[in-house]
Amino acid sequence: MNVFEEFRDLSGLEQLRALIKSGRRPPIGDTLGFALVEIDAGRAVFAGTPGPNAYNPLGSIHGGYAATLLDSACGCAVHSKLDASQAYTTLELKIAYHKAMTDRTGEVRATGTVLSFGRRVAFAEAKLTDAAGKLYASATSTLLVFDRA
Amino acid sequence: MNVFEEFRDLSGLEQLRALIKSGRRPPIGDTLGFALVEIDAGRAVFAGTPGPNAYNPLGSIHGGYAATLLDSACGCAVHSKLDASQAYTTLELKIAYHKAMTDRTGEVRATGTVLSFGRRVAFAEAKLTDAAGKLYASATSTLLVFDRA
Amino acid sequence: MNVFEEFRDLSGLEQLRALIKSGRRPPIGDTLGFALVEIDAGRAVFAGTPGPNAYNPLGSIHGGYAATLLDSACGCAVHSKLDASQAYTTLELKIAYHKAMTDRTGEVRATGTVLSFGRRVAFAEAKLTDAAGKLYASATSTLLVFDRA
Amino acid sequence: MNVFEEFRDLSGLEQLRALIKSGRRPPIGDTLGFALVEIDAGRAVFAGTPGPNAYNPLGSIHGGYAATLLDSACGCAVHSKLDASQAYTTLELKIAYHKAMTDRTGEVRATGTVLSFGRRVAFAEAKLTDAAGKLYASATSTLLVFDRA
Repeated sequence: MNVFEEFRDLSGLEQLRALIKSGRRPPIGDTLGFALVEIDAGRAVFAGTPGPNAYNPLGSIHGGYAATLLDSACGCAVHSKLDASQAYTTLELKIAYHKAMTDRTGEVRATGTVLSFGRRVAFAEAKLTDAAGKLYASATSTLLVFDRA
Repeated sequence: MNVFEEFRDLSGLEQLRALIKSGRRPPIGDTLGFALVEIDAGRAVFAGTPGPNAYNPLGSIHGGYAATLLDSACGCAVHSKLDASQAYTTLELKIAYHKAMTDRTGEVRATGTVLSFGRRVAFAEAKLTDAAGKLYASATSTLLVFDRA
Repeated sequence: MNVFEEFRDLSGLEQLRALIKSGRRPPIGDTLGFALVEIDAGRAVFAGTPGPNAYNPLGSIHGGYAATLLDSACGCAVHSKLDASQAYTTLELKIAYHKAMTDRTGEVRATGTVLSFGRRVAFAEAKLTDAAGKLYASATSTLLVFDRA
Repeated sequence: MNVFEEFRDLSGLEQLRALIKSGRRPPIGDTLGFALVEIDAGRAVFAGTPGPNAYNPLGSIHGGYAATLLDSACGCAVHSKLDASQAYTTLELKIAYHKAMTDRTGEVRATGTVLSFGRRVAFAEAKLTDAAGKLYASATSTLLVFDRA
């Protein structure tokens, strides 16, 4: 189910504001412990605290955790620029891993920003930092923008 | 904790074979429902069935799910080429999203292969397909190889 | 000038076959010394011999040379799948550098293949190898497919 | 030949300042018409004017031109952080194409900045803009840092 169906007359920014206000998290947010916490036109912030359930066998947080938050941040940054008739999908995502996370890293924030937004394509980037501003991972993403059926 | 510490006199390939034989999954594998199922020198296969707990708010499996399996496949393909004195870490990962997954997709497999393996750096690629061989996502990754302290 | 304008009633594959037959190279091909040498549906091969005019200040062939051939290979692999009403543009390209080239490397070939081809988006990959099959660089690319005005 | 050999007792920043002062361009800079114009610790700017010799067959500047300048900008941003005993090589580069260039675009600048710089690995990003600040392409790169023999 697309949770934005009930908001389909709203712009992307209004939809995401409604989602934050509702306090609901999508299933993946419950599973990995993160949520959208800030939204503006072209900028989205997700926050989460990586815990024991996201460990890889090497003794650190799996790279998929950072990928998930960064993908969310790039996607919602673009979502916030859509008008009520548009939708988007992520075409590709590249993540650079600067520093490993553990369950002692504490809360991290993935801040996504739109680099360019066209009629058919948008590009976004995102950075994942801890409370002290230390950079753990960064990403760039290409997204398709299209009219909803 | 690095689960491979107890296998530290083994080569990477032997470590991963021991992991499969043990039947243990790392925490992230329990959380998202996937596991290493095949390992050879330079090739690793992970299998998982994406379920309701990996949904994004748009009504499909979050892109982080594919990223997690593909990262695992690239990492373990390289891990399988390490000798007992070496370790590795992932520097970057790029994922291309070819087709959306839902909880009706069924089991998917991420097959990672090493493209080149040097003294300090390795490159790997991976593909995520369903039981019919349909391609959902693909990835390339750069990994650092180094001597364990 | 788009050299394919004179072939605009042809499919992409027919356009590229006509280009090979004509023996003409685009300006960038003359400048860096490479040309399209093989084309099939979903597969393109470019060949070139990197020379002294492509050196970086570090004493090897600049990474832009491999990027140029790999971009061409991914682009034309997708071009070969277009029908007469379609056009494409490259959205992004990622290049992995496996081994440095010099002016003693000799002829290299960039072979591009389509990974998936949809109504609006295509994904391709390419590999750059020498006459002995040694891998120097590899790439993946995302491309937009659209109807010509 | 590595043009920095004559400066091998200098830090990377000093080497690059000496290169700018010398007015010399590496061969690829002569071939495609671009040069390093600004250097600081962790930041490099290349400038060039794409011309008819960089055209692709589609009637615009080949994507390899932007790739070449962005690769240079990421590489030299990292080079500027090396001490006299260190060297670097580029492992991978991802380029996003925001807008096509033509020979009427005029001078463009690729500004590279270091995102993180470690003992063995550095990450950089770069943006390619015209005189009005319009974004044509952007890139991220992973680079290996090592001790010179």
